[in-house]
Amino acid sequence: MNIRLVLKSLGIVILTEGLCMLPSLLVSLIYGQGDATAFVISIIICLTVGYVLYRIPIKNRNFYARDGYAIVSLGWIAISLFGAVPFVISGAIPSFIDAFFETTSGFTTTGSTILQDIESLTHGLLFWRSFTHWMGGMGVLVLTLAVLPSIGAGSFHIMKAESTGPSAEKLVPKLGQTAKILYAIYIVMTAAQVIFLLIAGMPLFDSLIHAFGSAGTGGFSNKNLSVGAYGNIYIEIIITVFTILFGVNFGLYYRLIKGDAKGFLKDEEFRFYIGIILVSIILITIDLCKNGLFTLGQGLRHSSFQVGTIITTTGFSTTDFNLWPTFSKTILVILMLTGASAGSTGGGIKCLRILLLLKTIKREISKIIHPRAVHTVKTNHKAVNEDTVSGTLTYFFIYAAVFIISTLLISIDGKDWVTSGSAVIATLSNIGPGFEVVGPMGNFSGFSVFSKLVFCFDMLAGRLEFLPMLVLLSPMAWKKGSM
Amino acid sequence: MNIRLVLKSLGIVILTEGLCMLPSLLVSLIYGQGDATAFVISIIICLTVGYVLYRIPIKNRNFYARDGYAIVSLGWIAISLFGAVPFVISGAIPSFIDAFFETTSGFTTTGSTILQDIESLTHGLLFWRSFTHWMGGMGVLVLTLAVLPSIGAGSFHIMKAESTGPSAEKLVPKLGQTAKILYAIYIVMTAAQVIFLLIAGMPLFDSLIHAFGSAGTGGFSNKNLSVGAYGNIYIEIIITVFTILFGVNFGLYYRLIKGDAKGFLKDEEFRFYIGIILVSIILITIDLCKNGLFTLGQGLRHSSFQVGTIITTTGFSTTDFNLWPTFSKTILVILMLTGASAGSTGGGIKCLRILLLLKTIKREISKIIHPRAVHTVKTNHKAVNEDTVSGTLTYFFIYAAVFIISTLLISIDGKDWVTSGSAVIATLSNIGPGFEVVGPMGNFSGFSVFSKLVFCFDMLAGRLEFLPMLVLLSPMAWKKGSM
Repeated sequence: MNIRLVLKSLGIVILTEGLCMLPSLLVSLIYGQGDATAFVISIIICLTVGYVLYRIPIKNRNFYARDGYAIVSLGWIAISLFGAVPFVISGAIPSFIDAFFETTSGFTTTGSTILQDIESLTHGLLFWRSFTHWMGGMGVLVLTLAVLPSIGAGSFHIMKAESTGPSAEKLVPKLGQTAKILYAIYIVMTAAQVIFLLIAGMPLFDSLIHAFGSAGTGGFSNKNLSVGAYGNIYIEIIITVFTILFGVNFGLYYRLIKGDAKGFLKDEEFRFYIGIILVSIILITIDLCKNGLFTLGQGLRHSSFQVGTIITTTGFSTTDFNLWPTFSKTILVILMLTGASAGSTGGGIKCLRILLLLKTIKREISKIIHPRAVHTVKTNHKAVNEDTVSGTLTYFFIYAAVFIISTLLISIDGKDWVTSGSAVIATLSNIGPGFEVVGPMGNFSGFSVFSKLVFCFDMLAGRLEFLPMLVLLSPMAWKKGSM
Repeated sequence: MNIRLVLKSLGIVILTEGLCMLPSLLVSLIYGQGDATAFVISIIICLTVGYVLYRIPIKNRNFYARDGYAIVSLGWIAISLFGAVPFVISGAIPSFIDAFFETTSGFTTTGSTILQDIESLTHGLLFWRSFTHWMGGMGVLVLTLAVLPSIGAGSFHIMKAESTGPSAEKLVPKLGQTAKILYAIYIVMTAAQVIFLLIAGMPLFDSLIHAFGSAGTGGFSNKNLSVGAYGNIYIEIIITVFTILFGVNFGLYYRLIKGDAKGFLKDEEFRFYIGIILVSIILITIDLCKNGLFTLGQGLRHSSFQVGTIITTTGFSTTDFNLWPTFSKTILVILMLTGASAGSTGGGIKCLRILLLLKTIKREISKIIHPRAVHTVKTNHKAVNEDTVSGTLTYFFIYAAVFIISTLLISIDGKDWVTSGSAVIATLSNIGPGFEVVGPMGNFSGFSVFSKLVFCFDMLAGRLEFLPMLVLLSPMAWKKGSM
């Protein structure tokens, strides 16, 4: 591993994080709730540490995939560690582990919280907490690629390791340009959501918080009752629509801008994603009404909101879906696993992977029935590279294996299975809430320090789609002279 | 599909089943509990239907893989349907769906039951119920290959579709000979267990029942309290040891007979299997003692028995493990998923597949760290064929997909998640008991007819490792002129 290059890159990331704390400092100065000093100190720490690392001279400019993966995994751990500082210094979250959990949950756009009373936080801290969602959604490293000159020819490895889905694509030949386009779309869409929320009557501060939470598909709210606190159907519709939009592959928006509306609407993953959403809304609405929980209108309202916010792995809530019937809850779990589209800000396994996996089953059957035919897996009428197919199959097994091992480790705490298992899915798929103790009305404060660290690993592993974190854990990567 | 050949083969299978009911008829005559007529009628039905199908003239002797898979899936459905007849005619299980569930559970060596009072059954029926375990364990089609002249050159497809694990192997060049060797080992081991159980003081009838249950890794007992009813530590040790032995690849026993003890002990899957068993026993014993449920000796006794009976997917019980702490129960679930060895009578995913899957993760990491190296997956120092690797990865996804879809379908019944999910695992991995309502002290009687049919599908799909059942469901297989 090219340690110097990795450290220098971490310096850039931490410097960027320090600068990204400035808006939160501004908010804390506006509201004057006494947390400005915490931000000033945190920014000084980030800029100092970042600058020192950035100044490390590089002897060897060789950049391999493993370096890209290490920069991404260590970079995400670093921003979660440094991002926790304002919470600790201000005294809002005295335990560093809790603050680290909260910040990791922010950057990974999970939205799980250890806070029992969110509304007791100052506006500056609430803003920072939600701003981490916004940064983490599109990617912190992609952000540095967008604003800074490229570190070297290997930057594509960084983008590949940080972006979501089975294969990263450059929209334009230049990587920095691709990153700029992605962030431009992201900013415009976020701004549009803020404006819509303002029109619907939400205060500016709350609109920013909920737009960050939707854009990053994170789900932190500034209200204990989440979006349910507003009891406003327009706000709910706006958030439902925008979370679903943020769960679409951003590459498709670029095609739309370029005038290829047909390509957008005919995209197989997009159709699959919208199809699952519609079917889930219908099934849950029927189940909720059949069980007499809501009238048809109310059922449709809550099921649409919850389906949108869960499949995109945002995790806002308007009602305690933990109390829904088993069938509806099972559909929600399936959505938690499926997740949003590849190349979106959403988490989970991703619709494109599920599509590929289902087609692989069809291929196995076809191999038996038509043994002499050629068997390729296709999406959008193009054959998918066999490496991508086997990578996707392996990804699925890794997801399951990390889920099972994490649940085993969490079960040491002795909590019931639904709490333990759903807490792991909620962190691994970067959703936020699970069921029972960690349901939409609960939180993660009751777990042991060990369990919280397992959750932090899961959130990072889920957001980075496993390989960067596994490379970091692999003894192979740390062997001297490893090429 | 070569329909005539498939039907003729089904005839052979049903004829065989009729003959296999003779020992049960004998038992019912000995005990004279009035169920002999039911067996006589059932045998006549099997022999008549079997003979009529067997007499179908074959025009075309072409035999493809898809025909082999169809014979296996339809054959297993047929024996479960015809095997249910004695239960219905005798009036012991009046509902045909319930009787079909019980027989499917028997043949697939699951051991789940819809009976609320097992001890109320006649000896003849109890014998038949357990004898289905014994036939299903090594395979009903393999049995016909062993005793009858081969149907044609395609019999290997049948063996491949019915035997367990990622790849079937012939022990000797001739298939019929391989089947005979497998059954010879199976009979000797079963007889040995009966003798040991008799020495430990178990009555002959009970010894046969429990030996059938162990050999097939099925788990039907003739006692409501299962093996716990005897409270005899020697019986428990014998059953623990034999279930573990029946969970070993039978090909290894053949190597042992041939004098290759080293090859047996050095086999990677065997070591992995024994390793998991030992680690699980230690962890569960510690957890049980730490929680004050048992003394060290009692904890070791119950954990060893339960680990042995669960990893081999037998499902006997000596205690209500549903009351164990979450950590111990999570280990049991992991064992339920893992299952026994490939080429054994056990169910589940199989140790060899888990090994291959873990090695595939290592390969993905290695691809990033050493991009220029050649990446093959090896077991026992031999490279594994890429088709087997991708087949194993796909198998795992199919397992997960069938688990999720089944749980969704079962959740319509509105039972809690632990009951619904564990019932699906218990049937899909052919274990028998799950947790909560379907725990070792519970049963499957409370589910709807629809749910019971889903469980029957899961038991068959799990036992036949999915592809035969999926081929049957695939529209591709039924197209005319499908080649």
